[in-house]
Amino acid sequence: MLIVAGKGYVEPEHRHALLAGLEASVREARAEPGCLDYVVAADPVEPGRVNVYERWVSEDHLAAHLATMARPGRPTPAVLGMEIARYEISGSQPVQM
Amino acid sequence: MLIVAGKGYVEPEHRHALLAGLEASVREARAEPGCLDYVVAADPVEPGRVNVYERWVSEDHLAAHLATMARPGRPTPAVLGMEIARYEISGSQPVQM
Repeated sequence: MLIVAGKGYVEPEHRHALLAGLEASVREARAEPGCLDYVVAADPVEPGRVNVYERWVSEDHLAAHLATMARPGRPTPAVLGMEIARYEISGSQPVQM
Repeated sequence: MLIVAGKGYVEPEHRHALLAGLEASVREARAEPGCLDYVVAADPVEPGRVNVYERWVSEDHLAAHLATMARPGRPTPAVLGMEIARYEISGSQPVQM
């Protein structure tokens, strides 16, 4: 299992339109094989920040997803900066809040 | 390093007020020792879903954070359901998008 997570920055005034344009992609990704979770969403504190959180069953599932992302003509948003990483998971446990 | 992530569900009409009430806590958590990231935010697709993503340097830092969360009189939101887990990280690499 692996997690892809982090943040990107866009002009605050462009964030709403960017995320509205990505909503269909989020729905599609959540339905993809091996996708355990997939979020691209507005940060609640910083106005220009977009948070990314993805969880995949395996490397292969993530690679298949990335191949769909590389479709020609797919709009690539104007991103000012990005800090995203992949995390290999060695163990997990449910949390009771 | 560890990640705490997942989702909770609230009544959609209560989500905005809930998240507005948590904004200060998100800011505080981000400033806490060992906190590498901390997000509690609205899901972009499901109206009643709240996403949680936290990344901590160590177990001890997370425990110290949880101790601050357990303050008496701290409002605990009416949550309909929750699926949150802790993930031990065995390795990580930056992702170039």
